[in-house]
Amino acid sequence: MSDIKTAAVLLIGDELLSGRTRDINLKNIAEFLAPLGIQVREARIVPDIQEKIVEALNALRAEYSYVFTTGGIGPTHDDITADAVAAAFGDHIDVRQDALAIIQKRYEETGVELTPARLRMARIPDSAKLVANPVSGAPGFQIDNVFVMAGVPSIARAMLEDIEPRLETGQVIKTAHVRGVGLREGDLAGALADIAEKHATLSIGSYPWYGSPTDSGVNIVVRGADEEEIQTAIVDVSALVRAQGVEPEVHDIS
Amino acid sequence: MSDIKTAAVLLIGDELLSGRTRDINLKNIAEFLAPLGIQVREARIVPDIQEKIVEALNALRAEYSYVFTTGGIGPTHDDITADAVAAAFGDHIDVRQDALAIIQKRYEETGVELTPARLRMARIPDSAKLVANPVSGAPGFQIDNVFVMAGVPSIARAMLEDIEPRLETGQVIKTAHVRGVGLREGDLAGALADIAEKHATLSIGSYPWYGSPTDSGVNIVVRGADEEEIQTAIVDVSALVRAQGVEPEVHDIS
Repeated sequence: MSDIKTAAVLLIGDELLSGRTRDINLKNIAEFLAPLGIQVREARIVPDIQEKIVEALNALRAEYSYVFTTGGIGPTHDDITADAVAAAFGDHIDVRQDALAIIQKRYEETGVELTPARLRMARIPDSAKLVANPVSGAPGFQIDNVFVMAGVPSIARAMLEDIEPRLETGQVIKTAHVRGVGLREGDLAGALADIAEKHATLSIGSYPWYGSPTDSGVNIVVRGADEEEIQTAIVDVSALVRAQGVEPEVHDIS
Repeated sequence: MSDIKTAAVLLIGDELLSGRTRDINLKNIAEFLAPLGIQVREARIVPDIQEKIVEALNALRAEYSYVFTTGGIGPTHDDITADAVAAAFGDHIDVRQDALAIIQKRYEETGVELTPARLRMARIPDSAKLVANPVSGAPGFQIDNVFVMAGVPSIARAMLEDIEPRLETGQVIKTAHVRGVGLREGDLAGALADIAEKHATLSIGSYPWYGSPTDSGVNIVVRGADEEEIQTAIVDVSALVRAQGVEPEVHDIS
């Protein structure tokens, strides 16, 4: 496949917005999808409010090949994602027997009690296909191009394994980068723009870091589909860094 | 002030979406705004593409009291935020003398060369008010309810100090939480829903963590404007955790 496949990530949860929790799922999802040739192009973080989830989900699923949501599918009163996704699709939702059977079996094996609250985790929209959760049992689900996953990172990561065979792969984008310790962006910017223009099929990004006056520099990232062209660009960028009197740290294509 | 003030955060940059960089600015901004009574209600992450920045910015600035953007205001070819923000407001943009004077002065003091690329950092929309950057000189800016900040976390954090006096404060939301080590959400969910219903003016969230079978538990977060009611709810939640045979770790209002 040489098509470009795109994805959006919808992170659901008040805690991400309050700053109490720092998200890691976006990074994990992006890194999982990259080798499949699926590029994450947008992410949104919304609170546990149905209207906000519906609005974001409908915007994103219309625009990107796939949408991955995380969070809000547990057993507590603030877990409203499954109902919100059903509402976004105009689908009916209730406790579904196939999901309930999975949860029951798991609980019998582990000696956990099936409380009424845990039934909530078997609420799955009618038209959804389940997504396996090997970590804690309660499944995620897929409707159309939307994948609904848990917020706990280890569970979300495990769910991606079950989702992978369902994804159409696209053109893989490769990345290489050059670090220039102690450099400042402004010293490179003119010549870097020329390199970016010369390699117009690539995306060349410049990312400064500034930990302290003695720990700063610029990271130049080259991305694209053509490995040979990436290599050529990396040679150009390395020469540019060296011309500033700094030995470039080259990180090859990955 | 007892009004509710809201904010959105717009994080700009391909690197956040590729998974290469894990954002910290959202957390920093949320934690800075909380004691001012300004709640972050939504965040979006978009790539360095003008159309996407404009679309997101116009949606967010219409809906929330304030919007804070980070990223894309450096000197390199991929820094397009200032131009995108000008486009979103239909404002004219060019190198502005007041911004240029600040940058020049800084460079004279530090012996950095004012390259043509660095002039790019003085591109500021006509109607914008500058935001001071005590770390590296090049300013951010404000138009209307939108604050445009650097992506480097230490610089973004410093810019917030200059922005603070410009913000109308709102009703401060306090938070307390109870950790129940080893607990599972499903064992608490029914009674927790009752507590949430009893304290309807509060927002009570349940957040499981699952590092490994021996490092898991539930974190119950209580948020609201009324400290006394938070205290009462925390007593209720603590009793619930204790009833499960687990000693609650109570983290008082902050």
